[in-house]
Amino acid sequence: MNMDNHHNDHPENDPNYLGLNVNKGIEQPDSVNEDSVKRFLTRRKRKLLQADEYVKGILDGNITLLSQAVTLIESSNPEHQQLAQDIIIKCLPFAGNSTRLGITGVPGAGKSTFIEALGKQITGNGGKLAVLAIDPSSERSKGSILGDKTRMESLSSDPNAYIRPSPSAGSLGGVARKTRETIVLCEAAGFDTIFIETVGVGQSETAVHSMVDFFLLIQIAGAGDELQGIKRGIIEMSDAIAINKADGTNVEKANMAASQFRNALHLYPPTESGWIPKVLTCSSLNGTGIIEIWDTVSDYVEQTRKNEFFSHRRREQAKYWMYESVNETLRNDFYSNPEIKERLNGMEKAVLNDEISSFVAARRLLDVYFKTFESNGKKPE
Amino acid sequence: MNMDNHHNDHPENDPNYLGLNVNKGIEQPDSVNEDSVKRFLTRRKRKLLQADEYVKGILDGNITLLSQAVTLIESSNPEHQQLAQDIIIKCLPFAGNSTRLGITGVPGAGKSTFIEALGKQITGNGGKLAVLAIDPSSERSKGSILGDKTRMESLSSDPNAYIRPSPSAGSLGGVARKTRETIVLCEAAGFDTIFIETVGVGQSETAVHSMVDFFLLIQIAGAGDELQGIKRGIIEMSDAIAINKADGTNVEKANMAASQFRNALHLYPPTESGWIPKVLTCSSLNGTGIIEIWDTVSDYVEQTRKNEFFSHRRREQAKYWMYESVNETLRNDFYSNPEIKERLNGMEKAVLNDEISSFVAARRLLDVYFKTFESNGKKPE
Repeated sequence: MNMDNHHNDHPENDPNYLGLNVNKGIEQPDSVNEDSVKRFLTRRKRKLLQADEYVKGILDGNITLLSQAVTLIESSNPEHQQLAQDIIIKCLPFAGNSTRLGITGVPGAGKSTFIEALGKQITGNGGKLAVLAIDPSSERSKGSILGDKTRMESLSSDPNAYIRPSPSAGSLGGVARKTRETIVLCEAAGFDTIFIETVGVGQSETAVHSMVDFFLLIQIAGAGDELQGIKRGIIEMSDAIAINKADGTNVEKANMAASQFRNALHLYPPTESGWIPKVLTCSSLNGTGIIEIWDTVSDYVEQTRKNEFFSHRRREQAKYWMYESVNETLRNDFYSNPEIKERLNGMEKAVLNDEISSFVAARRLLDVYFKTFESNGKKPE
Repeated sequence: MNMDNHHNDHPENDPNYLGLNVNKGIEQPDSVNEDSVKRFLTRRKRKLLQADEYVKGILDGNITLLSQAVTLIESSNPEHQQLAQDIIIKCLPFAGNSTRLGITGVPGAGKSTFIEALGKQITGNGGKLAVLAIDPSSERSKGSILGDKTRMESLSSDPNAYIRPSPSAGSLGGVARKTRETIVLCEAAGFDTIFIETVGVGQSETAVHSMVDFFLLIQIAGAGDELQGIKRGIIEMSDAIAINKADGTNVEKANMAASQFRNALHLYPPTESGWIPKVLTCSSLNGTGIIEIWDTVSDYVEQTRKNEFFSHRRREQAKYWMYESVNETLRNDFYSNPEIKERLNGMEKAVLNDEISSFVAARRLLDVYFKTFESNGKKPE
């Protein structure tokens, strides 16, 4: 089986890390010192708690233990993984009682300030909010890894908010799995609203869409150029589009963009949920339109709970992740097989040069792959 | 390895089948007599030609040999498959010189008459057209299997057109593979235009999109209800949308629909090709607007050949199919494993009841799967 060999070099792994307090003004954090992470992980290993202790802490809403359990989820150490799975299984009966909201938008759309504005609204009303992220990028400075946390100053210091950066670099499937399992722990810890944030430029939206109840696309007004970075298909999976930065001289443009989107969405086929996707404008800066977006999410939840799509979708998602996880492992095992690695490039080249059909190339690789199992069996020592 | 155990019960497999001649008036053909197919296949086995004979025939434009070779592609008999692959490899150097056009639309959008109208245009200008279909449905009466052929009366009797119904029921991946390989043979046989038709209700559009140069969505005018059947996402992958049945009292509605689609498409992010998707109206009945659609396809080909996206896309497609084919086989092997089959339902149930996380369930199934290889190896007799 192939193994994720990336370190979990989150700042929160640092022994000096004290929870949600983050120094201000760090725009582009240096990458974490690998040696110190290793030292920490070694040290950490000795003081692992029992699964039940983590579970008790999580159910008590202990953020430190929650964070440590999430770190176990993110660890590639098999012992950590086993412990993490034990914790998850014990937390599962206490999970599920939250509204899971996916939030996407290109960098520059103002996701962080939007999340701050909406998040404060939620915690201000007595809600408990966890903000997670999926950003399977190794470039720490580009994504939402730590940047968001420093940008979400007021949420960061909010006792009813828990902000967890995206797991560090890894395959999308791996990162998605970790995030999905983190949702379980956060819900068991009493968080009733979960945001899963992602940058709308890669394939991670599909992954996010497959683990949330409601998918929100943040857009900004403009002449159409702002769509440049948004992947085709994202608009279609959105339950609502928020035109952000509808403030100052931008209001009119935002309203125009909103009405254009409304016309466009009108042409789309109906959603499976029966929900008609909404287009709203808002200003994270002024705080206008934010409550309306939350009302929209609430309307959606009410409507889909009534028609039972809500639980239907959750069940479908659970099934999806089981199958997706199987399929991803099968692929990983194949492509990390040394015999395949050796031949893959050559075979791809032959296909590109029309020397062989795509399907024959696949067949030959598969024959090699399945043969490695046979020969492994035949030579037992 | 799992095997496709469906028969290739095409009407063209019938020994009495004489090429493109199809009896008129057959609206819903009875399913083919299985026994006669078996007899035919057994008889057929004895008179298989050598790969080189098929290849020579195909390169000479011999439709009977082309059809027989396509039947080999569609066969689940390993000997046929081997022979088919030999033929394909030998045809590959002569393939690729066509415009591949994907055509989708819900039943009722008038795909068949549209294909007739556009097809006659093409053959009328000296082109050679092959019409293939992807319709991985076992319900023969519903799809485009034979119905289209009987409905495409004038193309059916056109010596410059070759209409091949969709391979019979099977997995989408299997049907797609067969269609993609059939393209190679048709091109080697001198067909310079290939239509791949599909019904816009399933997942087959993605498969079609992955094997054509240009993707055309056929729509009809109306109040939006006509979109009911179109899968979300198809509009986004279309290079052009044709509003069909723009005739009689429908013209105004069609124009309105077209302008709505134009506005909607305007909001979409730019395509990778640099091409701006077009919306056109046409009437397959009156023949109006048909030539403009073909001009649009030609414009697209010219533009993307100039910016080299055309060959880029073809190379990407060839690569895609190699990987997709590997991934599909890996999945098939897993899910057809008896040990997995035995456990899959129970595991899925445990996931749906929140007794186990999706990922642990996947892990347990995978452990069982990989163990079957070990034990197979350890008991060599």
